[in-house]
Amino acid sequence: MSTTIDNTEIYNPRKILDHPSFRIIHESEQTSQLSKEANIAAFYNPKHEIHLVEKPKLKPGPGQVLVHVRATGICGSDVHFWKHGRIGDSMIVTDECGSGHESAGEVVEVGEGVTQWKAGDRVAIEAGVPCSKPSCEFCRVGRYNACPDVVFFSTPPFHGTLTRWHLHPAAWLHRLPDSVSFEEGALCEPLAVALAGIERAGLRLGDPTLICGAGPIGLVSLLSARAAGAEPIIITDLFQSRLDFAKKLVPGVHTVLIPRNETPKESAERIKQIAGVPLKVALECTGVESSVHTAIYSVQFGAKVFIIGVGKNELNFPFMHLSANEIDVSLQYRYANQYPKAIRLVAGGLINLKPLVTHRFSLEDAVAAFLVAADPTQGAIKVQICD
Amino acid sequence: MSTTIDNTEIYNPRKILDHPSFRIIHESEQTSQLSKEANIAAFYNPKHEIHLVEKPKLKPGPGQVLVHVRATGICGSDVHFWKHGRIGDSMIVTDECGSGHESAGEVVEVGEGVTQWKAGDRVAIEAGVPCSKPSCEFCRVGRYNACPDVVFFSTPPFHGTLTRWHLHPAAWLHRLPDSVSFEEGALCEPLAVALAGIERAGLRLGDPTLICGAGPIGLVSLLSARAAGAEPIIITDLFQSRLDFAKKLVPGVHTVLIPRNETPKESAERIKQIAGVPLKVALECTGVESSVHTAIYSVQFGAKVFIIGVGKNELNFPFMHLSANEIDVSLQYRYANQYPKAIRLVAGGLINLKPLVTHRFSLEDAVAAFLVAADPTQGAIKVQICD
Amino acid sequence: MSTTIDNTEIYNPRKILDHPSFRIIHESEQTSQLSKEANIAAFYNPKHEIHLVEKPKLKPGPGQVLVHVRATGICGSDVHFWKHGRIGDSMIVTDECGSGHESAGEVVEVGEGVTQWKAGDRVAIEAGVPCSKPSCEFCRVGRYNACPDVVFFSTPPFHGTLTRWHLHPAAWLHRLPDSVSFEEGALCEPLAVALAGIERAGLRLGDPTLICGAGPIGLVSLLSARAAGAEPIIITDLFQSRLDFAKKLVPGVHTVLIPRNETPKESAERIKQIAGVPLKVALECTGVESSVHTAIYSVQFGAKVFIIGVGKNELNFPFMHLSANEIDVSLQYRYANQYPKAIRLVAGGLINLKPLVTHRFSLEDAVAAFLVAADPTQGAIKVQICD
Amino acid sequence: MSTTIDNTEIYNPRKILDHPSFRIIHESEQTSQLSKEANIAAFYNPKHEIHLVEKPKLKPGPGQVLVHVRATGICGSDVHFWKHGRIGDSMIVTDECGSGHESAGEVVEVGEGVTQWKAGDRVAIEAGVPCSKPSCEFCRVGRYNACPDVVFFSTPPFHGTLTRWHLHPAAWLHRLPDSVSFEEGALCEPLAVALAGIERAGLRLGDPTLICGAGPIGLVSLLSARAAGAEPIIITDLFQSRLDFAKKLVPGVHTVLIPRNETPKESAERIKQIAGVPLKVALECTGVESSVHTAIYSVQFGAKVFIIGVGKNELNFPFMHLSANEIDVSLQYRYANQYPKAIRLVAGGLINLKPLVTHRFSLEDAVAAFLVAADPTQGAIKVQICD
Repeated sequence: MSTTIDNTEIYNPRKILDHPSFRIIHESEQTSQLSKEANIAAFYNPKHEIHLVEKPKLKPGPGQVLVHVRATGICGSDVHFWKHGRIGDSMIVTDECGSGHESAGEVVEVGEGVTQWKAGDRVAIEAGVPCSKPSCEFCRVGRYNACPDVVFFSTPPFHGTLTRWHLHPAAWLHRLPDSVSFEEGALCEPLAVALAGIERAGLRLGDPTLICGAGPIGLVSLLSARAAGAEPIIITDLFQSRLDFAKKLVPGVHTVLIPRNETPKESAERIKQIAGVPLKVALECTGVESSVHTAIYSVQFGAKVFIIGVGKNELNFPFMHLSANEIDVSLQYRYANQYPKAIRLVAGGLINLKPLVTHRFSLEDAVAAFLVAADPTQGAIKVQICD
Repeated sequence: MSTTIDNTEIYNPRKILDHPSFRIIHESEQTSQLSKEANIAAFYNPKHEIHLVEKPKLKPGPGQVLVHVRATGICGSDVHFWKHGRIGDSMIVTDECGSGHESAGEVVEVGEGVTQWKAGDRVAIEAGVPCSKPSCEFCRVGRYNACPDVVFFSTPPFHGTLTRWHLHPAAWLHRLPDSVSFEEGALCEPLAVALAGIERAGLRLGDPTLICGAGPIGLVSLLSARAAGAEPIIITDLFQSRLDFAKKLVPGVHTVLIPRNETPKESAERIKQIAGVPLKVALECTGVESSVHTAIYSVQFGAKVFIIGVGKNELNFPFMHLSANEIDVSLQYRYANQYPKAIRLVAGGLINLKPLVTHRFSLEDAVAAFLVAADPTQGAIKVQICD
Repeated sequence: MSTTIDNTEIYNPRKILDHPSFRIIHESEQTSQLSKEANIAAFYNPKHEIHLVEKPKLKPGPGQVLVHVRATGICGSDVHFWKHGRIGDSMIVTDECGSGHESAGEVVEVGEGVTQWKAGDRVAIEAGVPCSKPSCEFCRVGRYNACPDVVFFSTPPFHGTLTRWHLHPAAWLHRLPDSVSFEEGALCEPLAVALAGIERAGLRLGDPTLICGAGPIGLVSLLSARAAGAEPIIITDLFQSRLDFAKKLVPGVHTVLIPRNETPKESAERIKQIAGVPLKVALECTGVESSVHTAIYSVQFGAKVFIIGVGKNELNFPFMHLSANEIDVSLQYRYANQYPKAIRLVAGGLINLKPLVTHRFSLEDAVAAFLVAADPTQGAIKVQICD
Repeated sequence: MSTTIDNTEIYNPRKILDHPSFRIIHESEQTSQLSKEANIAAFYNPKHEIHLVEKPKLKPGPGQVLVHVRATGICGSDVHFWKHGRIGDSMIVTDECGSGHESAGEVVEVGEGVTQWKAGDRVAIEAGVPCSKPSCEFCRVGRYNACPDVVFFSTPPFHGTLTRWHLHPAAWLHRLPDSVSFEEGALCEPLAVALAGIERAGLRLGDPTLICGAGPIGLVSLLSARAAGAEPIIITDLFQSRLDFAKKLVPGVHTVLIPRNETPKESAERIKQIAGVPLKVALECTGVESSVHTAIYSVQFGAKVFIIGVGKNELNFPFMHLSANEIDVSLQYRYANQYPKAIRLVAGGLINLKPLVTHRFSLEDAVAAFLVAADPTQGAIKVQICD
């Protein structure tokens, strides 16, 4: 293979920030009067501000595709970067940074050497672009979510896909059949997270399964677990309204409301009783210590507790209980090789993501969308920006 | 553990055949006048006859349960033993032998030491009873279908469960919830076969899957593969009527009619085109060479071809194609640890077995039932005897 | 199967304690004058005493074998029960209780129905005897270490195998070839622990492996990892003398001394540098929090940290690091199906256990043996009692 | 990523064949008088000739490395292409084609962008170079041996590595530590084949293993199986001399001579008796039908028969026996991700490849080397060309 320019250079965020046409749109501006051609995007910064910006609309280079982003969901991590400026020790907001990585759109123009796409093609955007070099062990063995040189759009410093015109490597777009809407295409991102969890957790047909947390990831995991044949499925949450939503989504699920003053062992006892059979898999989607403990105490000897949620740097585990019950604990970092499967399952009708979008905003109203997504009292499951 | 009497002795078929009350019911006899208490059963013999017999109704011994068998399906192997007198080199009909191993019923009476069952309990009968001794490697490691001392009811010389009053070890009955009918309980046997196949084939959520053959096992495999999230699913058969049945059962399935004069490579080309995506798993449910070849040519590099069907002693394989494509071939012998899962999936509504029963007969008409099951022009999927 | 008497009844410890010939041997007694026929054993009690007792020498019942125990190793758990009276919340010393579960010996007499053994046969004793009933899910699926009705000799209340004449179920003895000594046969118990770890950790040929802790389990794990082809292997400990022992045992191993004031991240940096390649498996054999952290920080993305050691009820984990690196954590409870393999590997010369026995005592001196085993300044790896 | 030139273009064999300096060296020429700078290579052609050629010594392009090939082993496939002109239906010799793919050498010069290598570095050459594009499903998931656009040096039409000066992509060279000789480095290619087999066969520590065939692949598999802790190991062959070689290589192995007139079932009976324990894995290294059958009849219920050897397009399998014993059959196509492990195991002393090289030739005598490799009466295990 001949030498190539690295993606980290191609998608260098400074190219945008230093571009003469880059500007922050002042909140006093009438966004409704912005041109429909303007490359509007929602950016956060180290001052914990969220605002619209105008970015250049660039031409696709070799191997690139220009996509008109038609739908983008707001993820908890988008809100977290805005509000807290960091996740962990390595992902830190140090400058203006574009949000959004749950996107689908329409191909507008293709760069040199791109033969598989043409204007008008409908695509889901895989936001994490690894280096794909054979010298990278993780790319070479197919575990590309571990690529140290990944460009993950919306993870600082790389700008996100919540923008009108987005440049993307051709190989990391995935075709959407006509039957799958842009909204569903955008939801394939959290679905990819859940599917990676289902795959790595080893969940199989007929496995009695616990899902902890009925937020967006918990609900997508619920849909996925049911599509994979988990039975029975028990789902927990602190809020009855979320459990009701889960029950509407998958009528066969058993819901367990967790009172704040209940101990994990007590919750586990109730969960076990409702399950009726020993639980083989737990998909923990909160990352909260008490919920992790509840999962661990709920499952049978030899079970897998798979933690999709993230949380504090350190977490306490009931060590001797894990040991005496040979409970395997696994965790997850993004996903690899899940998008084609995600689209296939949605297109085939095995997973119906549509009910998850509870709030929709125009691109010009992206800031308002963030405010709703960040406010728990709004009861939003998934807020999407559509264009 | 203290010494125990072996199951092969407890269920010694000679105890029935030599019992003074055992008799063959002559076909001229009015079966409608047989007592409702009479322990009628359908037996085959080395002369390739099938007829009703009257057996003693025995009292349950220690650890045993007397079951009133309420529904029994006729399996292809039942017909095969009747018509051909053997399967392979080790299972040979040498005397009168009772048929039937797909059964569910009602507990009538329990023997000494049986605490988990009481009269009136509804149960599915697991027909293969291994020795369960820790000195048996296969029982000890949980792969009890390989137990060399298994008593498999209806596999010669052991009499089957197609009888009115059946004695069974308490540990090998499985509780049916009220929502699961006896007919469904009986169908849990072929379902257990399919579930073992799904499990050993490694079929996972979203796997593009080919099912070869739309007979009873093919259809139960279809239901199971869909419950496990296979997508897309392609099913083949030589008869359009069976494919239509499959399509009604699982509307999303793609059907492929195989003309008798088509080569496996030709069939495979059509299958691949209809699938649209590379096939990762094939569940071969016919055991016929051309169909096995079709499966092998249809799947992608690295796929699994799992053969549930059985057939000739020797079979030709496209060796270099298997090698150049790292296709793994696995086969199956009965099942282990599948019944609880099977019942759970039926009770949970993930697998609907009801449409599979196309013909029903009374116990007194069991011979007529066999005639229908053995006649392909009748188009039966599953013939059941209900009592 | 006919009804059987449960092992928990057969091996009811009260039968010994209430037997007229049971007596505690006073420490003032001249043990050298005890008869060679006397069934001497080492017992602990809730007062944290360790002493010799004299037990009845019983006749083997049906399915039982009387074994002359010829070698027994002292395990850390034996010392722990003596000193602390409990492990976890369920295993509590409430009365006089016999120690020892690492034993091998010679068959003296067999009970009714035992055909596979005869006097003079040399055997390793598998100390955990599960119920083996098909109604026990864990026994039925082959994961018998999870059997809730297991009789584990030396785990309260069941008396151990550190005795002269031991009754054991025939199916749970394993034949020792002439080339394997009783001492090695006794060491097959800790080897079984390590082998279960290797198996469940998924360690494969060529896997770069970290072993934390060079105590008995760490060293047996080292031998096993090397026999499995792990390369490179790095082993850690707080004591240079143990590392030197490890190096003599497996010359190719890389040793890393852990200073008490070093942080886990610092230790991990050194380990990674010495390894030279990313570590895929860690076998943590201490159960100590800082060592667990060191293991977690040392391994690569996607690695398995397998914790064989046990420790505190609760343990802190670097949660975000586990998550960002998809590190799977697994733990272990005893073992299942490892003894035949252990003996095979020793007999075949792939694992040489002999150097591990550093101290030997006669049965009459068992109390002295315990004192050495419990005293870290003695530098014992494995103390054995030989008879 | 920017667009790249495909490897199939970079390594287009016509570039060599059409180069003005390419010439076939007539057999009458004094090869000893050829310049030490001349890029000599051994080529075969459709007329089943083998001869030396002189090729241009090219400058490394971007991402390329010029390697002085120091050792190359002759593989059975090299001889097969020479003698038969094809393997299967897709690999056909249609023109002059360079042989050799088992090579190691020294870096001479590096092209633009190559930073990890410098002149003097010692390397093993991985001869199969996949496309590594993220749009290639097999490269993306890490199963790069399935890449449809692979350039496998020495598989027609691509010229091989049996040449003095070889151009290779930097990412597909693997560093040899000083302790590993070029000869061993070249042997890492057949070792990679065996290691892929061990990995995919699931061979684990203590697995009783059968190896069929004591040729080069059988012997490397033997070394690998022993390094992985297989025990016992039984190896078969038609020739006692090869078995004697195997026994010298791994003294603990049990050898079984297969008489030509023995049936597979008879051979299997003897193998089982010699093994003493049920065989869990068979590594079939001949691809011959009778040997495949022997492997299948020798192993236990639930075993894996892994076929590394290749042979006829179609092969007969004992279908019912496979089915009644749930024997999984897997096959192999080259390897992926094995080189670093291979080198690590050799460097660590776990696998000693040195005894395998039985014959050595200079590059100028490569034709003579082929004659020895192709003549079974010479008893060569591995013939190498050293330069």
